[in-house]
Amino acid sequence: MNKPKSLFLPEDSLGIVTDLYQLTMAAGYFEHRMQDIATFELSVRHLPKNRSYLVIAGLEQALQYLTHIKFSAEAIKFLRELPAFKQASNEFFEYLKNFIFSGTVYAMPEGTIAFAGEPLIRVTAPIIEAQIVETYLLSIINYQTLIATKSSRIVYAAKGRDVVDFGTRRAHGPQAGVLAARSSFIGGCNGTSNVFAAYELGISAVGTIAHSWVMAFKNEQDSFNKFHEIFPDNTILLIDTYDTLTGARHAAKIGEKLKGVRIDSGDLLKLSKDVRKVLDAEGLQHVKIIASGDLNEDRIDDLLKNSAPIDSFGVGTEMVTSKDAPALGGIYKLVEQEHDGKSIPMMKFSEDKITYPCKKQVYRNSDKYGNFMHDIIGFEGEEIEGKPLLMPVIKYGKICYNLPTIYEIQRTALDNLAHLPEPFKRLKNAQTYPVIKSEGLETKRKEAEKMLKGINVT
Amino acid sequence: MNKPKSLFLPEDSLGIVTDLYQLTMAAGYFEHRMQDIATFELSVRHLPKNRSYLVIAGLEQALQYLTHIKFSAEAIKFLRELPAFKQASNEFFEYLKNFIFSGTVYAMPEGTIAFAGEPLIRVTAPIIEAQIVETYLLSIINYQTLIATKSSRIVYAAKGRDVVDFGTRRAHGPQAGVLAARSSFIGGCNGTSNVFAAYELGISAVGTIAHSWVMAFKNEQDSFNKFHEIFPDNTILLIDTYDTLTGARHAAKIGEKLKGVRIDSGDLLKLSKDVRKVLDAEGLQHVKIIASGDLNEDRIDDLLKNSAPIDSFGVGTEMVTSKDAPALGGIYKLVEQEHDGKSIPMMKFSEDKITYPCKKQVYRNSDKYGNFMHDIIGFEGEEIEGKPLLMPVIKYGKICYNLPTIYEIQRTALDNLAHLPEPFKRLKNAQTYPVIKSEGLETKRKEAEKMLKGINVT
Repeated sequence: MNKPKSLFLPEDSLGIVTDLYQLTMAAGYFEHRMQDIATFELSVRHLPKNRSYLVIAGLEQALQYLTHIKFSAEAIKFLRELPAFKQASNEFFEYLKNFIFSGTVYAMPEGTIAFAGEPLIRVTAPIIEAQIVETYLLSIINYQTLIATKSSRIVYAAKGRDVVDFGTRRAHGPQAGVLAARSSFIGGCNGTSNVFAAYELGISAVGTIAHSWVMAFKNEQDSFNKFHEIFPDNTILLIDTYDTLTGARHAAKIGEKLKGVRIDSGDLLKLSKDVRKVLDAEGLQHVKIIASGDLNEDRIDDLLKNSAPIDSFGVGTEMVTSKDAPALGGIYKLVEQEHDGKSIPMMKFSEDKITYPCKKQVYRNSDKYGNFMHDIIGFEGEEIEGKPLLMPVIKYGKICYNLPTIYEIQRTALDNLAHLPEPFKRLKNAQTYPVIKSEGLETKRKEAEKMLKGINVT
Repeated sequence: MNKPKSLFLPEDSLGIVTDLYQLTMAAGYFEHRMQDIATFELSVRHLPKNRSYLVIAGLEQALQYLTHIKFSAEAIKFLRELPAFKQASNEFFEYLKNFIFSGTVYAMPEGTIAFAGEPLIRVTAPIIEAQIVETYLLSIINYQTLIATKSSRIVYAAKGRDVVDFGTRRAHGPQAGVLAARSSFIGGCNGTSNVFAAYELGISAVGTIAHSWVMAFKNEQDSFNKFHEIFPDNTILLIDTYDTLTGARHAAKIGEKLKGVRIDSGDLLKLSKDVRKVLDAEGLQHVKIIASGDLNEDRIDDLLKNSAPIDSFGVGTEMVTSKDAPALGGIYKLVEQEHDGKSIPMMKFSEDKITYPCKKQVYRNSDKYGNFMHDIIGFEGEEIEGKPLLMPVIKYGKICYNLPTIYEIQRTALDNLAHLPEPFKRLKNAQTYPVIKSEGLETKRKEAEKMLKGINVT
């Protein structure tokens, strides 16, 4: 009988978690003895719908990948047998056997706020290495940044109330649920229902009961009493299994040790007000109301504008899938190549997909209160005002960066967001934050375009 | 210096890849000595936007999980120290230490077409076990089913042309990319760019070069020649780096060994026609045109309705994120409980979220050509016409099901789709396939509602 496959990522062979063309190109570069040092930059050409900024996340997992990537003997055997590699030499497979990433990486620290067109990560390495790592880097940065950004919008809408991640069941697989827990925390969430994420990351695990608990006992009151018996200091009860207001009255019977009630369905505005009245009438003003069920930034904004007495929001599907904009279009483009000791700027001209050449840096300009005014993208080494955002994180294959804790990363994000002026971050009709290309960069682009077009378009 | 964390799923402790409330409820059940056998059913209440059916996928990974779930000593230590478990007994943690899933599972085989409201998986186990596995099961089934369904729509639009998965870079993390490769293959794709997925699943790995290859050589023609030199039998060239028609002419210089050209940007309809002319003028009628770049079922349908001479589609972001409908709302609900040897039907009444009680089965009725006419949902053991869709897959913790290969699963899906009449599967304005609840089930529901409301709503 066949054994079911887990499809978990192969920790001993992360090199093959990539697109095939990265490896065919690698073989091609190898056979042509191309050992040029190439620089690729990861950026987002256009922000997704309804987004006016990005909260960068995923760098830690990218660094883990870059410092652990290798090819197992079994994986190499598999590649050897692929028709695509029929002409590849033994030396190439020998090369893969000893493969490590030996390049240098600059990146924006996690939690940094960034904008369209800005390089977020810059990889300089022998071209084969820089090429192979593209797919994984994009995947890990695209997703975590997507979710940290979405979560920051939800947290913004919640105006200081707690927001917690309830999304694993609707994430794109259980692993995505763990990454979502991390990145939504970076965006400002207070905790997650995902136990493994809490365990690995040292963040709060939250949650008490589901409808099935209530249904499993002989009646609702009994189920509430039985829960309180075992968890006297953490009694948060789900009250909508049968009828929400009756549920609130049953919960109130617990008395002053009751910590909170959760409403997961129905008209949350009306129900939260009615439930508050039931609780207050019993002298339970301290009991918190938690709301969940298809919440997002717009619904939370709406509830709070109508004075819903909700203390805390559990957000799932909409946050972990970034439902209104479920993909971030990060790209990874060759911008420079060193050939015979000379740096050659690189760009492509595909319609609507033109890229800027050269190693770049992003300079952020703030006013005297620290509020962000505009960013300038210049080439590396250009003299430009502002705080450079890309920092060295890997030098010659080794991490050269003190990894911040997830609490520090969240602090960076909240601090960055606090300094992003209101018009650039409001939920609807936000203004476009000014990102300027330096004159020097525009000149380099024109030169490169002229040179490359002269060569290629004939 | 801190080490970067991978956040890969813990193979030795999959039990904690769940929501905290599953474990607090488990502790509660344990302390109350609740050893009732419970039955939960996984179903989808409403289909997502633009969907008229589901292609079921993810069962194999669900079975892998159910037969491997356990709790490591370290994870148990972590749980012991959580404030939530302050009152839990040593015996509970001892129980977790020896935890295995010992239940019985019925499921629709992967590749089956299913509809809203139908139980897709049914888990019968001691209530603690059935409860803990909820989160992971939902996550793995929701995502793979979401993508198999989306891919089947794209494959349908492609009318027999190849569709391949290019999506890992935009999937919700690298692991989601692997699951997407699997589930999009089930929905009818011909291969994937994801090397690890191809390796693990035995499906075709596809892809040749990216823009960076073209840019890395001294000019486009040189880059094409250099690629052909190393891969003479697999020369598929990306021609839009600088100018697509010039690219086509450069590619044509390879001569009759050229296998294909890929266009990744611009007006694919116009460009594919112009490129076809360039190739045909050189006698290269056999050279295939591959299109990629933000494709989905609607764009492919549109291209083919306008006679775009495209032979094969590479689809990424839109497929692996199911971008128009990026979440499947699978739920997992308690439907029955055995208490003192008696089966008690269970349901909840939360507004808009009412569930049907009892162990259920889905009976599919087809006409004499095998075309699906309607499904009937009845209770287990009810005498109903039609082919039962839920099959035993795990009995008392052991797999009792011969796992099909992924090719067999794809065959099931394509066969099911072929027997789903056109009105129920067309891309737009599809009709709702008739799913009927049996009279017996309606009666059981009314009885359960009366009984439970009598107890709970006072």
